[in-house]
Amino acid sequence: MNHYPEAIVKLINSLSTLPGIGKKTAERLALHILHAPDHEAATLAGDIVELKTSVRLCSSCFALSDNDHCRICSDPARDPSVICVVENPTDMAAIENSGSFSGHYHILGGVLSPIDGIGPDDIRLAELFTRADPGKVSEIILATKTNVEGEATAAYIQDRLKAAGIRITRIASGVPMGGDLQYVDPLTMQKAMEKRYGF
Amino acid sequence: MNHYPEAIVKLINSLSTLPGIGKKTAERLALHILHAPDHEAATLAGDIVELKTSVRLCSSCFALSDNDHCRICSDPARDPSVICVVENPTDMAAIENSGSFSGHYHILGGVLSPIDGIGPDDIRLAELFTRADPGKVSEIILATKTNVEGEATAAYIQDRLKAAGIRITRIASGVPMGGDLQYVDPLTMQKAMEKRYGF
Repeated sequence: MNHYPEAIVKLINSLSTLPGIGKKTAERLALHILHAPDHEAATLAGDIVELKTSVRLCSSCFALSDNDHCRICSDPARDPSVICVVENPTDMAAIENSGSFSGHYHILGGVLSPIDGIGPDDIRLAELFTRADPGKVSEIILATKTNVEGEATAAYIQDRLKAAGIRITRIASGVPMGGDLQYVDPLTMQKAMEKRYGF
Repeated sequence: MNHYPEAIVKLINSLSTLPGIGKKTAERLALHILHAPDHEAATLAGDIVELKTSVRLCSSCFALSDNDHCRICSDPARDPSVICVVENPTDMAAIENSGSFSGHYHILGGVLSPIDGIGPDDIRLAELFTRADPGKVSEIILATKTNVEGEATAAYIQDRLKAAGIRITRIASGVPMGGDLQYVDPLTMQKAMEKRYGF
């Protein structure tokens, strides 16, 4: 790497700090940027700066947003009486991409994980409980991940809200659509059998 | 992707233009940058801009450089009488990393490739022939790649310079060091047998 000019070495080092980008990939990207048209590099640099200055959190659901209220929370076509609780913006994007949900979200910003020292006060649970007003909300869908921490967090929320008079649901687990059964892990298969339904 | 704020979508699109970075990876990188400390994002953006403004080509060997003459060409410890001809800066970096060469370089900026319409005038051959002064240069090592275009370019240079009274050599081909023979392709094995040497 030290056979390149200073400016290239600096960019290679900066790019290497990104997840999944090693020295070799960073070298390839830096040389690509070097040979790319000036306006492309300027756009990339500008977009990075703009991202850090313009993106904030929605004051209602804590999704990534351009404004005080995110696009979903300010969309009159979305149903504010159904709240889908997710761990992070990526999970929210996955649900949005599926087009299967038309309510509002609540982004926890993490899950309960005692081993990592993350307790109820470290994620946005208080904010969720404040939103859980039976006069305004009819259903809360728990869409935390299906691993130990996600299940524990869902169970904790369910327990805390069971007396609130709101319907609390959990997204279904089972065999992926179009998936070959031989590649399904035993735990998922067990869940698929347990949650089987009649026609 | 359109479930993210504008600034994130813009950065995802910019990052997707980089080689080997698809939409999914770009999304992961953009969210990483979003959550990274401000100074890290600023450094990355700054390094991209600096790269485009500060890197130029060495006026002697055409390597990437900070100045008019690159680090190697201005290093008194390097031997200017031996010139290693390579296709591009990446190949030069590979040779430098091996620590096996202490002369100067000549970066062609490509190889002869009639099928792509690249002839002798499209790469830095004239500049190489100008540098090939028998009073100053004792050896020219041809380190173009060992594919058809690289071999053809090496043969062309050898042919043009054979009357110049300079020793012209080609880097050796053969079995990689530490490599298992069963994974060596037939052409390489053929070359390794053909170029075998006595002890």
